[in-house]
Amino acid sequence: MSMSANRPIIPVILSGGAGTRLWPLSRRARPKQMLDLTGGGSMLALTAKRVADAALFAAPIVVAGADQAEAIEAEMPDIGALILEPAPRNTAPAIALAALACDRSDVLLVLPSDHLIADDEGFAEGVRRGLPFAQDGWIVTFGMKAEKPETGYGYIERGEALADGVFAAARFVEKPDAAAAQAYVAGGRHDWNAGIFLMRAGTYIEALETHAPQIFAAVTTGAFAASPAQSIDYAVMEKAGKVAVVPARIGWSDIGSWEAVLDVSDKDGDGNFVAGPGLAIDARGCLIRSEGPLIAAIGVEDLIIVATQDAVLVVPKRQSQKVR
Amino acid sequence: MSMSANRPIIPVILSGGAGTRLWPLSRRARPKQMLDLTGGGSMLALTAKRVADAALFAAPIVVAGADQAEAIEAEMPDIGALILEPAPRNTAPAIALAALACDRSDVLLVLPSDHLIADDEGFAEGVRRGLPFAQDGWIVTFGMKAEKPETGYGYIERGEALADGVFAAARFVEKPDAAAAQAYVAGGRHDWNAGIFLMRAGTYIEALETHAPQIFAAVTTGAFAASPAQSIDYAVMEKAGKVAVVPARIGWSDIGSWEAVLDVSDKDGDGNFVAGPGLAIDARGCLIRSEGPLIAAIGVEDLIIVATQDAVLVVPKRQSQKVR
Repeated sequence: MSMSANRPIIPVILSGGAGTRLWPLSRRARPKQMLDLTGGGSMLALTAKRVADAALFAAPIVVAGADQAEAIEAEMPDIGALILEPAPRNTAPAIALAALACDRSDVLLVLPSDHLIADDEGFAEGVRRGLPFAQDGWIVTFGMKAEKPETGYGYIERGEALADGVFAAARFVEKPDAAAAQAYVAGGRHDWNAGIFLMRAGTYIEALETHAPQIFAAVTTGAFAASPAQSIDYAVMEKAGKVAVVPARIGWSDIGSWEAVLDVSDKDGDGNFVAGPGLAIDARGCLIRSEGPLIAAIGVEDLIIVATQDAVLVVPKRQSQKVR
Repeated sequence: MSMSANRPIIPVILSGGAGTRLWPLSRRARPKQMLDLTGGGSMLALTAKRVADAALFAAPIVVAGADQAEAIEAEMPDIGALILEPAPRNTAPAIALAALACDRSDVLLVLPSDHLIADDEGFAEGVRRGLPFAQDGWIVTFGMKAEKPETGYGYIERGEALADGVFAAARFVEKPDAAAAQAYVAGGRHDWNAGIFLMRAGTYIEALETHAPQIFAAVTTGAFAASPAQSIDYAVMEKAGKVAVVPARIGWSDIGSWEAVLDVSDKDGDGNFVAGPGLAIDARGCLIRSEGPLIAAIGVEDLIIVATQDAVLVVPKRQSQKVR
């Protein structure tokens, strides 16, 4: 294992998404990462805080859509660089923009901007564990405990142990069918892929050149918009050789639905979480959230009720993934 | 039976209520009778239309709270007289104000302003049937079919038949307990008291003098605010002698809750009624009504969802009587 110079890791925060699954709060003009869902700050600000330890991390690079520049600067005072995507092309080309802006030997920590992690210290611990492998040319992923047979996630199968708490990744499976997902959860050898990656900039660029030559060509010739729109999972991770996985039990959630927001919220004795002007009367298990009108929820159970000035959503929490 | 001059009946429309059971649409500043719940006009306007036949009715007298004067004039272009209550004192004193403004021999038709009647022609038919009795000194009430053991209503027990479709009222029972209400519905001799009364002005004034001397004294000496606040049912009907009941099967509803609004609404194939900007997606049996924000109701059943600019109500329809 090579011992590179002790330079800090460069966080690369991906803020290009226009997640609308938390409609009506999230919109194109105000994507999920700009929302304060827990009362602790926007998800983007929480992500930045997660990598604020200067002993381990440099100031972050943010890759975002052009229309988000102003919001990002408001949320992140200590940004290292803001790279605006000329066009939305999914994560593989977006990460390439950041990698090309760094030295080939720099280690990057690629992070979605709209996930929650309860245990930031545990996360840093996992990053430290993966770092020597990233420095040695591996793409290091972080495996979140597969708690239920989610068919919307990617799964990573652990292979041989490389070190304490670090495994070779045997296989990536994106969005398995229900039977496969059941088997993964039961088998205990699969983790959820949280979209967090630790690797040298050069490792990524070389992987693109080998496995995604069209993307490589587009981003290295300045023709970004001509790149195929592909995720890093599809373009690289399912094909690359030296991929490691660090299992991380750190209270991760991608907050992919209002039900997930309720799951991570600090609920009252009746299981309700009320944010903004709202009343829960004889109500149980409800998320009640308003940015304007007073919400009166009477006698209802397990409902998501979210109101803005111009829209109101009412949906059972178990169906909240239907919201787009 | 006396044959009085063939003068038209004077409708007396009571608009003093501040019904808030249809919150957030109904408020103190905009009581239920000012709402257009069916798309056909406000309940007040529909009430005025119900007594618009000039062959039978004179222009109506409206008795209302002072703060409603402007709204009433907007809703009712052809008003006969507008009497503003110096203070809210329930229906018995309010009706007295109208009665004192008429000739003693005038026949009054007292009507709540916030009830719906589907069959206006059937209603007029019932009024014609009761008219000779009102002219002869009876207080004529109209009995609505007691469809369920409602404990919030008053019940009228039919006694001996006076004529075809006209009965002496044997007894008035206000808000019976559940067991009594069950027995009334099962027995078939009780009707709901809809708060509609046909009688000579003089009959009413005399009944007040006999059965409610404090009210009589207050209203005849100009000391209205000193009157006890009592309903006509309590002050007069439960005590008066010559009371008749005309059973009327005319699609009556007092629209006492949002569930009642849904009951009388013209629902789609999934049992939903959507008014204003709203979407019902995989939803059934819902009332979705907005005066402003777009409501998206996804996967919900039997819910009332009502939004205004500043408030949102979400309640199961069977619990909507909890709203105040």
